[in-house]
Amino acid sequence: MKTNPGRFFEDYRLGEVIRHAVPRTLSGGERALYHALYPARGALYSSDEFARACGLPQSPMDDLIVFHTVFGKTVPDISLNAVANLGYAEGRFLRPVWPGDTLESASEVIGLRENSNGASGVVWVRTTGRNQRGEPVLDYVRWVMVRKRDRAAPAPAAVVPDLAGAVAPADLVLPEGLSFAGYDFALAGEPYRLGDYAIGEVIEHVDGVTIEEAEHMLATRLWQNTAKVHFDATFRDDGQRLIYGGHVISLARALSFNGLANAQMIVAINGGAHANPCFSGTTVRAWSEVLDKAETALPGVGAIRLRLVASAARGTALRGADGKYAPEVLLDLDYWALMPV
Amino acid sequence: MKTNPGRFFEDYRLGEVIRHAVPRTLSGGERALYHALYPARGALYSSDEFARACGLPQSPMDDLIVFHTVFGKTVPDISLNAVANLGYAEGRFLRPVWPGDTLESASEVIGLRENSNGASGVVWVRTTGRNQRGEPVLDYVRWVMVRKRDRAAPAPAAVVPDLAGAVAPADLVLPEGLSFAGYDFALAGEPYRLGDYAIGEVIEHVDGVTIEEAEHMLATRLWQNTAKVHFDATFRDDGQRLIYGGHVISLARALSFNGLANAQMIVAINGGAHANPCFSGTTVRAWSEVLDKAETALPGVGAIRLRLVASAARGTALRGADGKYAPEVLLDLDYWALMPV
Amino acid sequence: MKTNPGRFFEDYRLGEVIRHAVPRTLSGGERALYHALYPARGALYSSDEFARACGLPQSPMDDLIVFHTVFGKTVPDISLNAVANLGYAEGRFLRPVWPGDTLESASEVIGLRENSNGASGVVWVRTTGRNQRGEPVLDYVRWVMVRKRDRAAPAPAAVVPDLAGAVAPADLVLPEGLSFAGYDFALAGEPYRLGDYAIGEVIEHVDGVTIEEAEHMLATRLWQNTAKVHFDATFRDDGQRLIYGGHVISLARALSFNGLANAQMIVAINGGAHANPCFSGTTVRAWSEVLDKAETALPGVGAIRLRLVASAARGTALRGADGKYAPEVLLDLDYWALMPV
Repeated sequence: MKTNPGRFFEDYRLGEVIRHAVPRTLSGGERALYHALYPARGALYSSDEFARACGLPQSPMDDLIVFHTVFGKTVPDISLNAVANLGYAEGRFLRPVWPGDTLESASEVIGLRENSNGASGVVWVRTTGRNQRGEPVLDYVRWVMVRKRDRAAPAPAAVVPDLAGAVAPADLVLPEGLSFAGYDFALAGEPYRLGDYAIGEVIEHVDGVTIEEAEHMLATRLWQNTAKVHFDATFRDDGQRLIYGGHVISLARALSFNGLANAQMIVAINGGAHANPCFSGTTVRAWSEVLDKAETALPGVGAIRLRLVASAARGTALRGADGKYAPEVLLDLDYWALMPV
Repeated sequence: MKTNPGRFFEDYRLGEVIRHAVPRTLSGGERALYHALYPARGALYSSDEFARACGLPQSPMDDLIVFHTVFGKTVPDISLNAVANLGYAEGRFLRPVWPGDTLESASEVIGLRENSNGASGVVWVRTTGRNQRGEPVLDYVRWVMVRKRDRAAPAPAAVVPDLAGAVAPADLVLPEGLSFAGYDFALAGEPYRLGDYAIGEVIEHVDGVTIEEAEHMLATRLWQNTAKVHFDATFRDDGQRLIYGGHVISLARALSFNGLANAQMIVAINGGAHANPCFSGTTVRAWSEVLDKAETALPGVGAIRLRLVASAARGTALRGADGKYAPEVLLDLDYWALMPV
Repeated sequence: MKTNPGRFFEDYRLGEVIRHAVPRTLSGGERALYHALYPARGALYSSDEFARACGLPQSPMDDLIVFHTVFGKTVPDISLNAVANLGYAEGRFLRPVWPGDTLESASEVIGLRENSNGASGVVWVRTTGRNQRGEPVLDYVRWVMVRKRDRAAPAPAAVVPDLAGAVAPADLVLPEGLSFAGYDFALAGEPYRLGDYAIGEVIEHVDGVTIEEAEHMLATRLWQNTAKVHFDATFRDDGQRLIYGGHVISLARALSFNGLANAQMIVAINGGAHANPCFSGTTVRAWSEVLDKAETALPGVGAIRLRLVASAARGTALRGADGKYAPEVLLDLDYWALMPV
């Protein structure tokens, strides 16, 4: 059989590096589509002129375009037989990606633990995206629950990686040349700087977007993510197409402009959970909580650590009394962004 | 509260200039999307070679891409609390926009009049779009009805601007270098030149397009227009998403190719009304009426003034016996385009 | 009447060359949209770096972008009054198309035969797409059944062109400079080379995509194909919009990556039939059969002749006992692609 059956739990070996297929050149076309798919308005990703005024040679590709492109390549090797996408950690954007750059990705297996049911196991991988010069542009850890092909296959020695709860401010990699010293708040859309946000502050982002099937499929294909469950209405018994979790990330991030217009560049993804599945017809809303703040060595540039929650309902509920995510919560993402001080 | 509540009627001051946020660099990506979203076939906007044969350095961005981009930036400041988008006047395209250009927009408040109900008022603004060199590329007057935050707020002195019924031919700004002296009618798609059109002539454009939710949202987001009513199915009591009026403009303009293939560049918008709301599922049709014709100083280039009507039904009805727009009329737009003589 | 009524059967003259309107410049925007519309993952069309490693200056536009663009231009002249799109033959890709190239197309009438019912006839055309230097990039024969305007119009002498059943391997035109000598199978996504495929081998491509209205309309408009039946839900009595056959071709070709990742460039279309109409909501699947294999003069480059079948059901059924296409078969396409030996 020449088609890809995907890997099963017993196919992964600790320490193995999987080079993912199909490199991808990104251009202004992907950027335009990103703006059509999400209500993205971050000035640094919208305007070459604004980016130049911030010390960059031109507007970089949106960080999440980079994330989705790198992630999409991993799907045929990592998550084709995944039962669940369990989490992210230690994600860092290491270098801007420019129109014309070509991205590849590779994943190292850094953890394996069979489940007690003997039918599946958890695989941890550290995925690295690189540009055409081999320079890393992004790396992150992701763990997924993967089915076993054969329940009788022996369990590997359990190795669970020790992952940081969050990227430490000192470990953030900052884009070379970036300066917010002459930052134009009026053009950026809001007057709020790092000092205007308090740790613990919660911002409800007001807007909502009702998702259509065509939109999430266009987006998911754009990143060459081929998981059947997103595209084939006959795949699930209920006839619904599960929306790629990254679509919800991008939607929520774009909605967060309204209140966080100056949280310009994502530099780290500390963690993330796709708390509940999302389907077409859902009106997605978002809220953010300020988790931390830090200084950086770049002129005028601070870092803000944010919890970004996508929700199918108004309000800022996160967990119920039982400690579980509220049923309307779609995404709980923890990230660092750069913001003018 | 850090999210943008939008401005209310009493927040506008006569003469004030509002600089709108989020400059935008346009590229071949936006052009490709425009061709995917609308059945646009104007040769000058489709082919660099055709544009060069007409004396331009390359194919400019479609005029309506420019209009929507400039307009989109105004939404958070002008129409977030608008009850109705009342009209346009004195719109002029002042300079072509090329792929790679970055647009900004700003609006001057040129008129204010509180409604007799004390709950809202009309705001007139003159919006100007500029490129990265600060050169104006488009300006137009738009007026909207905006809610008051506080009915008790005092009414400003009423100032209603004196607006031209149409841009005079002598005031049209013509693209530098444009020539239709060697115009290739076969490549453009139709043999008709300015002399073939009679004032009063009506052209029914034959084709129809049934609109889907995903399409109008992709388009509206592409222009970074964030009005909730276009995206959030929970916003209106009837669960419908109102389609951005500009989507209907672009759709009708593209449909008008069939009969007006040589009405190449829009140089002025004399007026416009979104006569009735448009929703997903509507099959949009279009017809045009020749309102006027004029010569220009450019070789082989004439100007044609057209009424462009988008309709949810076949036929060329405009108004009922009561003088009101027929219920199927979606758009009544009055514009000048350039056409070979 | 200034709108285009389309040509009727009696309007075609044997030997006449019809130059089609609206040249089109293609860019990275069209490529990005292609990746959003189809699950396309061919490495040569995804990555400039991969293309360079194969001896090309950069990644060419996907062959089917070229096909659809050239085809789209013919619609107003050839198939506006077509009753049926009957077949393709002798299609050859003659030269890669690069971002920035501008395509035109022209068709020569090479066959005419009135149907015995006197109400319609079959028109054969050879369509050639050319770039801005006038170099041919694609030519193919297509035949369509076209209505007569007037049943009383005299029948032309019947001329049925003698068409090759398939392009002979020696007649394939190979891209200058192409080499698969250093082909990277891991990056391309699969290890299989020409020698791994046996004539007669059937590959079921596993994945399926459920089509939405918005998607096929975006795609069809992108190629400036204006046939009403694809866009206007009021056009057919059943209220359905017929999906452009080329959309199904691109979808099936993209799905065939899974099992044929190394069938990189399409160099010939030997034949094709849109076996049954396709409508929104269909979950499209694909299977391929290896029909032939051939060597080429280029380093490491072989040719594989494939039957590509798009189907609305699982399985690899093609024809029923009556010799007719099974009802679930949407497309039966016969093409040559280049593959590493």
